[in-house]
Amino acid sequence: MADIEIYDTTLRDGSQGEGVAFSVSDKLRVAERLDAFGVHYIEGGWPGSNPRDIEFFERAKQKTFRRARLAAFGSTRRKDVRVDQDEQVRLLLEAATPVVTIYGKTWLLHVLQVLQTTPDENLAMIEDTVRHLKAHGKFVVYDAEHAFDGCKDDREYAFATWQAAERGGADVVTLCDTNGGSLPHEIAEITRYAGGGLGGRIGIHTHDDIGLGVANALAALDAGATHVQGTLNGYGERTGNCNLTSVMPILEFKCRKRSVPAGSLATLKELSQFLDETANIRPNPRLPWVGAAAFSHKGGTHVNAVQKALTSYEHIDPALIGNTRHVLISDLAGRSNIVMKARELGFDITSQTPELREMLDRIKALEHQGYEFESADGSLALLIRRVLIQTGPPFVVDAYHVSMRREGETSVCEATVKVDVGEECAHTVADGDGPVNALDAALRAALVKFYPQLERVRLTDYKVRIIDSTSGTAARTRVLIETSDGASEWGTVGVNENIIEASLQALVDSLEYALVKDRVACLQ
Amino acid sequence: MADIEIYDTTLRDGSQGEGVAFSVSDKLRVAERLDAFGVHYIEGGWPGSNPRDIEFFERAKQKTFRRARLAAFGSTRRKDVRVDQDEQVRLLLEAATPVVTIYGKTWLLHVLQVLQTTPDENLAMIEDTVRHLKAHGKFVVYDAEHAFDGCKDDREYAFATWQAAERGGADVVTLCDTNGGSLPHEIAEITRYAGGGLGGRIGIHTHDDIGLGVANALAALDAGATHVQGTLNGYGERTGNCNLTSVMPILEFKCRKRSVPAGSLATLKELSQFLDETANIRPNPRLPWVGAAAFSHKGGTHVNAVQKALTSYEHIDPALIGNTRHVLISDLAGRSNIVMKARELGFDITSQTPELREMLDRIKALEHQGYEFESADGSLALLIRRVLIQTGPPFVVDAYHVSMRREGETSVCEATVKVDVGEECAHTVADGDGPVNALDAALRAALVKFYPQLERVRLTDYKVRIIDSTSGTAARTRVLIETSDGASEWGTVGVNENIIEASLQALVDSLEYALVKDRVACLQ
Repeated sequence: MADIEIYDTTLRDGSQGEGVAFSVSDKLRVAERLDAFGVHYIEGGWPGSNPRDIEFFERAKQKTFRRARLAAFGSTRRKDVRVDQDEQVRLLLEAATPVVTIYGKTWLLHVLQVLQTTPDENLAMIEDTVRHLKAHGKFVVYDAEHAFDGCKDDREYAFATWQAAERGGADVVTLCDTNGGSLPHEIAEITRYAGGGLGGRIGIHTHDDIGLGVANALAALDAGATHVQGTLNGYGERTGNCNLTSVMPILEFKCRKRSVPAGSLATLKELSQFLDETANIRPNPRLPWVGAAAFSHKGGTHVNAVQKALTSYEHIDPALIGNTRHVLISDLAGRSNIVMKARELGFDITSQTPELREMLDRIKALEHQGYEFESADGSLALLIRRVLIQTGPPFVVDAYHVSMRREGETSVCEATVKVDVGEECAHTVADGDGPVNALDAALRAALVKFYPQLERVRLTDYKVRIIDSTSGTAARTRVLIETSDGASEWGTVGVNENIIEASLQALVDSLEYALVKDRVACLQ
Repeated sequence: MADIEIYDTTLRDGSQGEGVAFSVSDKLRVAERLDAFGVHYIEGGWPGSNPRDIEFFERAKQKTFRRARLAAFGSTRRKDVRVDQDEQVRLLLEAATPVVTIYGKTWLLHVLQVLQTTPDENLAMIEDTVRHLKAHGKFVVYDAEHAFDGCKDDREYAFATWQAAERGGADVVTLCDTNGGSLPHEIAEITRYAGGGLGGRIGIHTHDDIGLGVANALAALDAGATHVQGTLNGYGERTGNCNLTSVMPILEFKCRKRSVPAGSLATLKELSQFLDETANIRPNPRLPWVGAAAFSHKGGTHVNAVQKALTSYEHIDPALIGNTRHVLISDLAGRSNIVMKARELGFDITSQTPELREMLDRIKALEHQGYEFESADGSLALLIRRVLIQTGPPFVVDAYHVSMRREGETSVCEATVKVDVGEECAHTVADGDGPVNALDAALRAALVKFYPQLERVRLTDYKVRIIDSTSGTAARTRVLIETSDGASEWGTVGVNENIIEASLQALVDSLEYALVKDRVACLQ
């Protein structure tokens, strides 16, 4: 049995986050992944708030979850209405989930000004609704909204609302720091107060408004709560919910408390990436534990020390959460960075290799122009290779022309390229959805005659960043391209005032790297 | 006098963050802003690590700071070298700052494996270096690297290193959780242990590796530390340093402790934005306190409640840190969101306005295609206006042609547009640095004849996001443009498979909004 129950609300509270939007099939896929990962509860949505969530619960009826229990979220009945005549409560039952979670009011400010009802009617709304759901065989989680603000305002009334839920038969009473403004010592004190008076399981639900979402959840778990609600990657309204992607590894590796099954955390980074991809959120490289930068080293002294003793600047082995160590290239770093990076890329060089100086100089000069090699390992490998071996590139783009025309509804986008490969020249044309797409197609059409292995190579991501954003469209553009040949992936970079030119540079690097990558190390 | 001293290391430890790079003049501008804001110490760099930091301190000698004291950062002397013959220590003195901060080793693992010296020589390195700096009249901050990991490993030796600093005359002994893996209760316990044995001021320096950077700093301040080190926006290596942008308002508004001057925090959001702009970091909308989303409301029930009582879903008045309330447009939200947003934009509508339904439907359909109105208030206002008033747009782009050609070194980028304004048609041509820039120039050339007020209108930012990033360059592109006429700013959006077409949509909206914006409300 777990010491701490994990209650995931990514699909409900998480979807309130800015830029987060899940389709019904996204939601079903996320629920499957959460179940496989091993959380205890999956809050799927609020059937009373939108038709998409009703459809989700309808389709979820066909699914069998291995471990997790699905929860439908809603609120207590409306004021002055019989609970069995409340439409929203009826929709909650129709979702046909084993668990129903309802929120109710703790704070008199809300009872009087938002609900515009009496303190006693609020207590009745809570107790009635929980009892009604219990009578229908549900496992009931009661979310005490504004539990901490309400308790700071009126301790006795707050406690009375939690007691009303318990009298109704609630299985868990969850204290919610809805506005996210409480401090850990307040959370701990009020959790102890609630736990001392109530008989059942206490849960905690926090938000990150002041930057303490995770710390506040931990404070409650230290003070006796054994059920924690949050979202993956900390998605959620405003600054986000308590980030379960941090809470779960802290419980396991720092507090030695059991929550998810042993071994699950080794797939935590994968789960976090899957969520960002599904929600189409730009991954935060600085996300604790799972971010791409969480185990990156930039400062020269750190890199040097990590070479000597891995634990010297790492609080944990990144493999335990499925993450990896990275060394960043930058002018802050010493030679150690380049040497470690070059070895990561397959070059057998040491800090004594004489060409190191020239590599550093070229990197610094390009970084000064706006290039960034931190996620462009393909371009970096080509740079290192060009310094170490003096052979020319496998192909050269001699000329290109891109043209887009729209008249009324008709729109045409076409690209031509002239490419030299050794003594031969290919001149090709292609159209596309946009200028870069057309150029990519024309370039591949030219090269695939000479290098049939490029058939397997596909662009997987294309990112554009304006570098000097204050000068509007005349600013410099940095393009990062990610490419895959099925077996491995690499990133390449291009920088120019003209987005087409920057894209072409990154495209050329991506294809050149595809042609030389299996030979980078052995050719030096 | 302040209860808590704020020590900002954005320019040194912060610049180790992925993607963060400051030029020397950036650093000088940041230091000026930090001084105006009222932090107590500004750590400007490490003269021993790179020539840029030496230049920074050279140029900083001409500056007078009003309140802050400038600190140069470095390390203790090397092993087996006399302190007055250590090059790095010499550079520290040459920086000519009132404060010098040096770090030294607490953890035996580092002493033995990284420094490869003896425990006694390490103590001598600390004491000698501090004493030497004090003899040159410096205020000395001693940063005890890995203070917590070292102390957990060997309490007596850790304490001996801190004592060595104090014997040398250190003014502050700062305990550093260098690897960022400690828990608040460990931080509190070890801070009390250090404070109980040492006589002087205790500082705290934490990192956010497990998501507790801010909580750990607060735990130390609760346990007796009175000096806190961190960075603005939490910049820093890996997942970042302790975020001062959260710590400062927590101290003032939640803990009621004085740190920066009264009133400074009302410019906190501005300071945070300034930093992101200077470092060219994409602002994190979810940053606690100062993020663009920190006071945004998306869920329909929240929006409804906020209309009834402002404090109901806000832990603090956003104006106290210079932030503002936003209402997001999304299909989760009810009519309340649109009404609040429309009023924010100057339309006098209520939840009873019959056209509300059509606005919601149009917004949902466009959001489904990938549009995002959360930062495109100009496009949203035009959408609302188009529903409310049935007049045609002030101009229509009838046709365009963009062409880019490179042969060898010669490159040409040219755009033509045909624009209808009422009965007249303008046909113009312009060149530019890239296709969007050329198109923007041609469009303005056409319109400025009819609308001379567009002379004042300038694009201030241009952002590109690939929406379905898994399909490479054929994916859909969302372009967000920000525009200013000197008096106000607005955002517009365009979505298309073709980046040029998406850019043109956003450009057209930006100019159309410029022409109608002062009339949006009165024209309905």
